[in-house]
Amino acid sequence: MVTGIVHTCNPHLEGAADDHLYHFGISRGSTDIPATFGDVKFVCAGGSASRMAMYAKLFATEAKLPLSENLSKSDRFCMYKTGPVLWVNHGMGTPSLSIMLIEVIKLLNYSGASDVIFVRIGTSGGIGVNPGTVIVSSGVINGMLEECYVQHIMGKRVERATKVDQKLGGELVETAKDLGIPVDTGVTLCADDFYEGQGRLDGAFCEYTTDEKFAFLRMLRSEKNVRNFEMESTCFAAMTHRAGVKAAIVCVALLNREEGDQVKISHDEYLEFEMRPFRLVTAYIKNRI
Amino acid sequence: MVTGIVHTCNPHLEGAADDHLYHFGISRGSTDIPATFGDVKFVCAGGSASRMAMYAKLFATEAKLPLSENLSKSDRFCMYKTGPVLWVNHGMGTPSLSIMLIEVIKLLNYSGASDVIFVRIGTSGGIGVNPGTVIVSSGVINGMLEECYVQHIMGKRVERATKVDQKLGGELVETAKDLGIPVDTGVTLCADDFYEGQGRLDGAFCEYTTDEKFAFLRMLRSEKNVRNFEMESTCFAAMTHRAGVKAAIVCVALLNREEGDQVKISHDEYLEFEMRPFRLVTAYIKNRI
Repeated sequence: MVTGIVHTCNPHLEGAADDHLYHFGISRGSTDIPATFGDVKFVCAGGSASRMAMYAKLFATEAKLPLSENLSKSDRFCMYKTGPVLWVNHGMGTPSLSIMLIEVIKLLNYSGASDVIFVRIGTSGGIGVNPGTVIVSSGVINGMLEECYVQHIMGKRVERATKVDQKLGGELVETAKDLGIPVDTGVTLCADDFYEGQGRLDGAFCEYTTDEKFAFLRMLRSEKNVRNFEMESTCFAAMTHRAGVKAAIVCVALLNREEGDQVKISHDEYLEFEMRPFRLVTAYIKNRI
Repeated sequence: MVTGIVHTCNPHLEGAADDHLYHFGISRGSTDIPATFGDVKFVCAGGSASRMAMYAKLFATEAKLPLSENLSKSDRFCMYKTGPVLWVNHGMGTPSLSIMLIEVIKLLNYSGASDVIFVRIGTSGGIGVNPGTVIVSSGVINGMLEECYVQHIMGKRVERATKVDQKLGGELVETAKDLGIPVDTGVTLCADDFYEGQGRLDGAFCEYTTDEKFAFLRMLRSEKNVRNFEMESTCFAAMTHRAGVKAAIVCVALLNREEGDQVKISHDEYLEFEMRPFRLVTAYIKNRI
């Protein structure tokens, strides 16, 4: 294993004649993966395809780098490249994210890219923070409040360690402060749904009271140091750790869940808030490429 | 509760002045939901946005019904309407699906639509079936081989019963036979990832042997009556059951996992296979509207 290379760990891949990355429509046999992806140093990932396409376009303009066409030949995900930065969307939830990550990890391993940093830039529901605050995750927990990503493999439960890079996270917090972007750091709770899994009162089904919801939020904040809810962080932190790459999770809070469940910001505020993780991460990247 | 209405069960919704279905960008206060959605009788759902848009367009032509514009104002999901049939995509995995279902269940409840049938039409990996076979699920199990959908609510594990409608499933099997579409029925395993969760040997990481993979597939087939893997069925079966609507899951097998892990069919075969669940379900629907 070459130091710095994105790791895979699968003896079955070694004898494979070809490999088709199904959800990107990219085959090892028909694409020159080292030539196309060998220079990648940063992977920026987020849920929405159109937001990631917008980010890629903006970054290309700002950094004066060429913008690739959509390199994904499948409609499941999009993928753009701007010099050493890859922009990929992952949909919503850990299952969707896991597919993207497995295929991007294989792609980068085949490419020979080294010392790659993965950053998830997304939106989230804050707990006790003002809307618009960017949260850099110091750690992640799942819906059972455990610090791990759970997989079910051949009918057995397997726990994977979740690790975000503390030094990278600290540098991102400092970058936010330099840019005047409101920033906080703390634990992120990765839920498997948007409504009951996040203690919302506005789903189709709800079997808990308002008091129970607020007690849950207070407990998360005071006992677990939780700052925000989203739906991908455990898988992101665990799979990047398994691949031996540094990772950070940077999500803007669109609301303070202690004040409600619905996103009530104006469209202009939304546009401003969704740019904050991008502005922060791209300022960090531009200083390092 | 009016008989036949799509159920919600959330006392907090009753006092709400408005409700914004965030991932569709549809608000109760600014859209006449009964006028727009009150006549819905079928919801056809699948993972890919472009495939669902194609299905809606084809159905409108075949059934001589008007095709709506994309009724979703968010890029997270698409939604088309052709008379009494709604076409919605759900992305990949149960978390993404759960968001779509919760918001569509609320939407239909607000609309007053009654006697609605939900059908998931998707792709899957078959076990011991020829590629191109359409599997109508007789039941669903999760990655722990349990017949339930697991939610994590306020740090606690909650199991939801999964129910598919056996009569509806039987009618869909008969419709497939009438159309000459190869069809089978059996249990569907809903995995939380595409690679390790489905016993594939071609992910970035793999800690089991080829023999263990095949023993797992054989056990699923012989002891659990499993016919295919996909990634949404437990949530689909549980949430529709909770909403008091009939549901069916109809997925074509793109490969036989006993013969490999990668989809190796030609593009023409893929186009033919992905149309089979659509042809089957739309033949069923056209006889009933």
